[in-house]
Amino acid sequence: MAVNLLPPDPKALSPVAGVELGFAEAGIRRANRRDLMLMRLAPGSRVAGVFTQNSFAAAPVQLCRQRLAASGSFRALIVNAGNANCGTGDAGLAAARRTCEAVARAIGCDSGEVLPFSTGVILEDLPVERIETALPRCVASLAAAHWAEAAETIMTTDTVPKAASRSLHLDGTGVTVTGIAKGVGMLQPNMATMLAFVATDAAVSRALLDHLVREVADLSFNRVTVDGDTSTNDSFILIATGAAGAPEIGSERDPRYAALKSAVAAVAVELARAIARDGEGATKFITIDVHGARSGEEAVRVAKTVAHSPLVKTAFFASDPNLGRLLMAIGNAGVADLDTSRVDLYLGEVKVIAGGGRAASYREEDGARAMQPAEIAVRIELGRGDASATVWTCDFSYDYVKINAEYRT
Amino acid sequence: MAVNLLPPDPKALSPVAGVELGFAEAGIRRANRRDLMLMRLAPGSRVAGVFTQNSFAAAPVQLCRQRLAASGSFRALIVNAGNANCGTGDAGLAAARRTCEAVARAIGCDSGEVLPFSTGVILEDLPVERIETALPRCVASLAAAHWAEAAETIMTTDTVPKAASRSLHLDGTGVTVTGIAKGVGMLQPNMATMLAFVATDAAVSRALLDHLVREVADLSFNRVTVDGDTSTNDSFILIATGAAGAPEIGSERDPRYAALKSAVAAVAVELARAIARDGEGATKFITIDVHGARSGEEAVRVAKTVAHSPLVKTAFFASDPNLGRLLMAIGNAGVADLDTSRVDLYLGEVKVIAGGGRAASYREEDGARAMQPAEIAVRIELGRGDASATVWTCDFSYDYVKINAEYRT
Repeated sequence: MAVNLLPPDPKALSPVAGVELGFAEAGIRRANRRDLMLMRLAPGSRVAGVFTQNSFAAAPVQLCRQRLAASGSFRALIVNAGNANCGTGDAGLAAARRTCEAVARAIGCDSGEVLPFSTGVILEDLPVERIETALPRCVASLAAAHWAEAAETIMTTDTVPKAASRSLHLDGTGVTVTGIAKGVGMLQPNMATMLAFVATDAAVSRALLDHLVREVADLSFNRVTVDGDTSTNDSFILIATGAAGAPEIGSERDPRYAALKSAVAAVAVELARAIARDGEGATKFITIDVHGARSGEEAVRVAKTVAHSPLVKTAFFASDPNLGRLLMAIGNAGVADLDTSRVDLYLGEVKVIAGGGRAASYREEDGARAMQPAEIAVRIELGRGDASATVWTCDFSYDYVKINAEYRT
Repeated sequence: MAVNLLPPDPKALSPVAGVELGFAEAGIRRANRRDLMLMRLAPGSRVAGVFTQNSFAAAPVQLCRQRLAASGSFRALIVNAGNANCGTGDAGLAAARRTCEAVARAIGCDSGEVLPFSTGVILEDLPVERIETALPRCVASLAAAHWAEAAETIMTTDTVPKAASRSLHLDGTGVTVTGIAKGVGMLQPNMATMLAFVATDAAVSRALLDHLVREVADLSFNRVTVDGDTSTNDSFILIATGAAGAPEIGSERDPRYAALKSAVAAVAVELARAIARDGEGATKFITIDVHGARSGEEAVRVAKTVAHSPLVKTAFFASDPNLGRLLMAIGNAGVADLDTSRVDLYLGEVKVIAGGGRAASYREEDGARAMQPAEIAVRIELGRGDASATVWTCDFSYDYVKINAEYRT
């Protein structure tokens, strides 16, 4: 069902010096599938993250937040699919801690240097002993080349594994950025938690890495939406091992920062777009560009309001150029003092709304043609400023209802 | 498809002294259906209203706002179905004015004493001449007993007409409150604009009527949601003819105010609930009660976040007691410092969540049984205050997608 999304070519995923990935079948929810992924990091690796805003943050999210507040250096990430360890109270926190302790014993580090992640069903106890049993196989399979396998291991309702890679030079030192993701958005469906892990072998100070992960999240995972819901486990983690050997980047003003940010953002955007392409029941991949806003925040708000509207999404599914729904959605974004007579809208190259009404040149058959492709660009001009933003989403089909109505059966 | 909703019994709809209703087939969008409704009001009738917050407010909404700001006394409401007169620019405003002028000529009043309403497709010009042609038939059919016919005339995608009536005594004077509505919510789908017209023959001062319409909207139409979208034409109008002959109510402290408000709210809540029962594709009618919030606003926000979640709504459609989705939705309401360990949740009489986790007493089969009925009550206890709120919604079915994907074909 994914829209123009192929599994990653393992050869196109460059290893990141200082990162090894292992996987195993732990039988956490279902037998005979990989569901446990271990990422071992070279000593001195720095980690930063952003997490779900949901009040019911899962136990591993709570533990990650505590540990990232206390330290920026970590040796391992452990990720299980099949169980979210959420709504599990103190027992859930204990289970997450015990998982980290098992990893620490297995690879020889402090358990506080391990970060845990879970995705899957919620309100069920995490079967820690199955994780402990499977861990030795995870460790035995650790290899720098296992990014594609890692991407497959962390999937839940995903139909295609998601991974991306970029290489660049920073003052003559070759540096790699490689990442994997699963699930369907910081704003996402089906408790199919979004997890994303992006690593680079560049060296970045703790404070700057913390800044970078937020900047990149705002350009990528915070710009993708499937149905507007937000999971209890959503996490985006950025790792800088420093193993490429280049001097540490410690300031935004260091010219290498912009180059590295550009590569990290490229990987994150590719992963975020892959998430929308693989949205539940998706038949169309939709890019919404808003221009002429007074602020970036305003542009994002308009784009997301359009992207979230079930009426707009069903119109895309039906390939129906229903201009009224697009106008209605823009009008619902709560933009103060919006002069609707300055609003223009394009479907692909077709100008459909001019000055807040139907464009004089618009013909229904042109709109119908613009709604046919599997990838559609919507451009909205607000005519009130210079800010712009892009949001990615997918349509809303019978299969969305089917997938979500039958999820647990 | 409507859930436990029958057409109103015309005998149960009491006429309101000072209000006559007429209807006609104007052929605005389709032939052979009533689509034009005229409500004539006795001299001295007061009118107040609340309208959509959508920036693309339709021409009739703009005109109503202007006229209600300038005056509180009106002689007629004219309502057409089939065309929303929205996104039509200056020509749309001229068409709405011309409609009012035709009504003024037909019944003998000033055109500024007429309020126009439209519902239907948007971005298409209103065929005013068809309205003008049909108006004499509308006038000829004016009668105090025509509430049920009026409810049917203003329908668009509604499957059942919506009307309600209450009678009460104010200091010995018999007073009636009767209202009609169409569409699916101030927050609603398919551009199927919510219009509601409630009239009483009590006498209420202009300022107090303006206050009353807002108070009642917050208790009724602002508490119903189908898919979270808001139309360009949504309007709730409250009329006080004063024709029952009782002295005017001019203050909230007048004990008659509370009695009248209670009756108006009862009519408005019945209409609002009817709107959710007739939500597009609805198979279940869901009442969400939130208790223990710090403020009414907080309680409404939690209830609406749960009511809007496509994941929660598809779970209701599937009769799946998916507790994780309910927790997730509560957690997404943005309640500051929510102590999740104090959150309890009931499906009907079944306690499913206690202290933020699965209730010890909970059995899956009890939850499954609680999800079967066509009417389901969800009770959420936040445990942080004394405020509460109720919101009504419906589930999210295949037919929602079908109706909205095929709407214009």
